[in-house]
Amino acid sequence: MILLTRKAEFSSAHYYWNEAWTEAENLRVFGRCANKNGHGHNYTLEVTVAGEVDSVSGFVVDLKELKEILEREVVSVYDHRHLNLEVPEFAAGTGNIPTTENIAIAIWRRLEGKIPHAKLHRARVYEMDDLFADYYGER
Amino acid sequence: MILLTRKAEFSSAHYYWNEAWTEAENLRVFGRCANKNGHGHNYTLEVTVAGEVDSVSGFVVDLKELKEILEREVVSVYDHRHLNLEVPEFAAGTGNIPTTENIAIAIWRRLEGKIPHAKLHRARVYEMDDLFADYYGER
Amino acid sequence: MILLTRKAEFSSAHYYWNEAWTEAENLRVFGRCANKNGHGHNYTLEVTVAGEVDSVSGFVVDLKELKEILEREVVSVYDHRHLNLEVPEFAAGTGNIPTTENIAIAIWRRLEGKIPHAKLHRARVYEMDDLFADYYGER
Amino acid sequence: MILLTRKAEFSSAHYYWNEAWTEAENLRVFGRCANKNGHGHNYTLEVTVAGEVDSVSGFVVDLKELKEILEREVVSVYDHRHLNLEVPEFAAGTGNIPTTENIAIAIWRRLEGKIPHAKLHRARVYEMDDLFADYYGER
Amino acid sequence: MILLTRKAEFSSAHYYWNEAWTEAENLRVFGRCANKNGHGHNYTLEVTVAGEVDSVSGFVVDLKELKEILEREVVSVYDHRHLNLEVPEFAAGTGNIPTTENIAIAIWRRLEGKIPHAKLHRARVYEMDDLFADYYGER
Amino acid sequence: MILLTRKAEFSSAHYYWNEAWTEAENLRVFGRCANKNGHGHNYTLEVTVAGEVDSVSGFVVDLKELKEILEREVVSVYDHRHLNLEVPEFAAGTGNIPTTENIAIAIWRRLEGKIPHAKLHRARVYEMDDLFADYYGER
Repeated sequence: MILLTRKAEFSSAHYYWNEAWTEAENLRVFGRCANKNGHGHNYTLEVTVAGEVDSVSGFVVDLKELKEILEREVVSVYDHRHLNLEVPEFAAGTGNIPTTENIAIAIWRRLEGKIPHAKLHRARVYEMDDLFADYYGER
Repeated sequence: MILLTRKAEFSSAHYYWNEAWTEAENLRVFGRCANKNGHGHNYTLEVTVAGEVDSVSGFVVDLKELKEILEREVVSVYDHRHLNLEVPEFAAGTGNIPTTENIAIAIWRRLEGKIPHAKLHRARVYEMDDLFADYYGER
Repeated sequence: MILLTRKAEFSSAHYYWNEAWTEAENLRVFGRCANKNGHGHNYTLEVTVAGEVDSVSGFVVDLKELKEILEREVVSVYDHRHLNLEVPEFAAGTGNIPTTENIAIAIWRRLEGKIPHAKLHRARVYEMDDLFADYYGER
Repeated sequence: MILLTRKAEFSSAHYYWNEAWTEAENLRVFGRCANKNGHGHNYTLEVTVAGEVDSVSGFVVDLKELKEILEREVVSVYDHRHLNLEVPEFAAGTGNIPTTENIAIAIWRRLEGKIPHAKLHRARVYEMDDLFADYYGER
Repeated sequence: MILLTRKAEFSSAHYYWNEAWTEAENLRVFGRCANKNGHGHNYTLEVTVAGEVDSVSGFVVDLKELKEILEREVVSVYDHRHLNLEVPEFAAGTGNIPTTENIAIAIWRRLEGKIPHAKLHRARVYEMDDLFADYYGER
Repeated sequence: MILLTRKAEFSSAHYYWNEAWTEAENLRVFGRCANKNGHGHNYTLEVTVAGEVDSVSGFVVDLKELKEILEREVVSVYDHRHLNLEVPEFAAGTGNIPTTENIAIAIWRRLEGKIPHAKLHRARVYEMDDLFADYYGER
């Protein structure tokens, strides 16, 4: 078994706000991230898949196909979007705040079961160079 | 004469939209950047100052002071903000679109004349790793 | 369960020297690192914590709190310090040489049990871009 | 137990071609990588070893020795070479295509059992910044 | 006037060989780079253009157009190619060795006069992270 | 004319202290850098040379020779050294504090006139990723 990791990037706006809290509580917990005008990041996604190397092609997974899956399932939905306003899993009423942790989980769920011949192993999301979250699925 | 460069970062939302154009024209020129919900970036700013090395301190410019100036004049205004909605030089009615070029010019103007004992030499702004603008002032 | 990683940096001096060895033996094993005038590095620390995402805040761990803990427990002790001369766990008489491996272990011990609502998972220390150590605790 | 990782680099040419396939089939699966004139990369290798920290030296593994092993076993064989034409494990007739996955496996096999006092834990190979493979041996 | 820089990447094979020299002379001057099987690199190109910011669009140059020009004039010609065998300016008989310096000059000549509304200012080519050449045209 | 830049690294200890000042004054100006036990950095040096491309070799400067010059004139003197205690230009009594600016100037003076067939154009020194100095010589 071998692991293969492919990076992708998306540039999105977001903010942190818990609708059940007062403004003061939101500011206390989320600080500058609670600005409802939004701010944004260049996110980096690292998707790791696990599988056997195909003895004919030398690939765990077809790289062109993997790139297309990341583009279709994640980048086209998140890139140049406002996560709170345009991405269903973070929309108002979901109570799902687009923290780095929750973005990693959401991307896992978008990709799970979609990668032929390999198993999704990890979704890593960098919000900035100095902060990232890793999700390995339920286990 | 020597040049000293200090980096700073800010995470902001923005979009590109020319109010004098139709929606179709905005989409044609600005593509995905014309989404008015906004998207965002981790911007990196490199400010370069020029001067003589002080023979006593060994500094062109006091580093703590330079850091405070960048924080006060730029980072506190741009970071975790929506550039179109919260930063005066890019507000509606100015016609000043927050492109990488215009952000570099705006930061130059915010810093010019504010750095004691040294001359502002260049403002470089990275929107992403693969795109940056350099402004050296009017000349 | 999800993993969250935060980076921090510290700039320190150190040298490698085993007091039980002759100078020749120290030079043979440690090479240029045995220079007792010291040399130094920009260390990068990556601290990974594991936990459940809080369904209200969307956080595994409060990021401001985590940053304060890293600052208080590690950065304020190591940064702009001489590790052999000023940091107790590497002081003369301890026999504990500040190698990348031992720094990772020492930082783990400084952080263990200090992070509320999450479990310390890994301490990674880069001495340079091309050399790093990972410690996951005793197990 | 602690993990220590050392990076090394090599610049090599390669191409992807399955001798059992037609040209059309090779182009369909491998795209531009099937150009038999070859193209190339700056590969980055990260070798991770696991072991106990020696209480006298503070090392899991002697760093100078580790560097020499990587140089002798991998870099001197792969660097400034054409992988398909000059490296035995990828030579014509082996059917072993020098994909990132297969390079990671080949490097693992070159290093396994060669590192004194520590256990080879992982071979990670980056073909580019956005693509890498991890191999942990048979298990 | 402002400068805008865009990066692009290409992965190519090459070797250094002066047809007028003996093999010994080539090895003496070019070392491992004289291996005629070729080796390769992930090249990074930074193209800088200079111009006035358009007061309507906020751009010095249309970014989509610039990207297409780089793709058409450089990347499609150099990427996944063997520079000595497939790129006319470095072909046998030209005597033009694909050093980092010569690649920067060749890319300048491919781009000069092709960028609407702006002036080509600099072509920078990185062969590796620690080696790059800058060309500003004849002057 | 073309510019060629080569990077090198050195890991050194240093501190900032003006012998003519009181301890309080040193602490006020230099902050944590005034700790006389020393701290340290992984410095990155970028040396840029300017010249004509040799029409036979394709080089501005022989890369192996340039590397040896940087090693002999700078790296062997600064690396794994305490700049204040072991490098003559920063020794006690010189009044020359090893700031990033002064290190860039000192390296320029060490290299000037030593590079055959090319002109030293710039010495850039990074103390950390977010701070660097550029020196172009007296002019």
